[in-house]
Amino acid sequence: MIQSSYTKTEILNLDKQFRTNLINSLSGFKSANLIGTQDENGQSNVAIFTSVVHIGANPPLMGFISRPHSVPRHTLENIIGTKEFTTNHVAEQFIEKAHQTAARYSISEFEATNLSPEFLNGIAAPFVKEAAIKIGLSLADIVDIKINNTKMIIGKVEYIVLPKSMIAKDGKVNIEAAKTVAVSGLDTYHKTAELARFSYAKPDKSLVRL
Amino acid sequence: MIQSSYTKTEILNLDKQFRTNLINSLSGFKSANLIGTQDENGQSNVAIFTSVVHIGANPPLMGFISRPHSVPRHTLENIIGTKEFTTNHVAEQFIEKAHQTAARYSISEFEATNLSPEFLNGIAAPFVKEAAIKIGLSLADIVDIKINNTKMIIGKVEYIVLPKSMIAKDGKVNIEAAKTVAVSGLDTYHKTAELARFSYAKPDKSLVRL
Repeated sequence: MIQSSYTKTEILNLDKQFRTNLINSLSGFKSANLIGTQDENGQSNVAIFTSVVHIGANPPLMGFISRPHSVPRHTLENIIGTKEFTTNHVAEQFIEKAHQTAARYSISEFEATNLSPEFLNGIAAPFVKEAAIKIGLSLADIVDIKINNTKMIIGKVEYIVLPKSMIAKDGKVNIEAAKTVAVSGLDTYHKTAELARFSYAKPDKSLVRL
Repeated sequence: MIQSSYTKTEILNLDKQFRTNLINSLSGFKSANLIGTQDENGQSNVAIFTSVVHIGANPPLMGFISRPHSVPRHTLENIIGTKEFTTNHVAEQFIEKAHQTAARYSISEFEATNLSPEFLNGIAAPFVKEAAIKIGLSLADIVDIKINNTKMIIGKVEYIVLPKSMIAKDGKVNIEAAKTVAVSGLDTYHKTAELARFSYAKPDKSLVRL
């Protein structure tokens, strides 16, 4: 198979759009989450993020990367204002609406894309009704990533709601059954098919399929 | 559909293993990368990480979360020592070997799991020969996440190698063609099937499928 390789100098000399697409593909599959917020006047906002990551289970923490000059900057301003936000798994049924939330609207993206805001458990940020798996978080920290002037927003999980049938006896969630999608690059959505669940890896034991 | 919900107090009172599985499922699909390093004596190390994320395209930056007391802590020590590391997409053909790298070995995980180290372009860290998509990085920054004593390790992309046939004219990489897998929770591997690639979202335009 013919290989393509790029050195640092070659990467810097690439056409900007080519480089953006290439580099955005390198980390592998990304999560697809709609982050819901509202400003202090109750104006709601929802935007797709593909950088939500697990930070820790105890305390339960999740994070995402916010670019200072990107479209979804209202998300960060609203989180700083109200100290709360929601993450909602993007599912196969509404990938087009989810992708469209990235447009630079002057009105609420809920209104513009016909997604439905839903308020739960007293959290001052809208959940996305269409999502099967919804998480409410409180702002825990904002970590500066100085090298490119981005920030990692870290939230503490305050509330979780999802279909009972998708939770295994040991707490594992079948996010594939929820039709949660994965993203590659900037704009490509994928459904999944489970290959295997493996036991905890130990040096002198063979893996068992669970 | 019957819903399960968990408030903050209920989450804190869950059985530890149940909570770990549940919270690790919340961020959505995760990337699967083998991170290759070596220590200053040339002892190689490879470990699976599911927290690699895109940080920026210009300069090209990727990051991952390192827990201070976790098994792959050699990875962090080696990166601090040599200032270089590699990320290598885990593909369907070697998910079992990739998962097994999480075991606490005293020898190199390459030797223990029968994955093959490969040295390219003068980078002082091993690539994984079995991976179709390989990235060499130099240490750019280590960002403290104080709230749970983890760190985000940020690398600058120095070298990329992948099959030419997987790169679209606009730079997008078909990571599905590379059989790159996605992970859910702590231990479940998924292949993917593309649903759609959408055009850049704008307020007054309908999305086009690319």
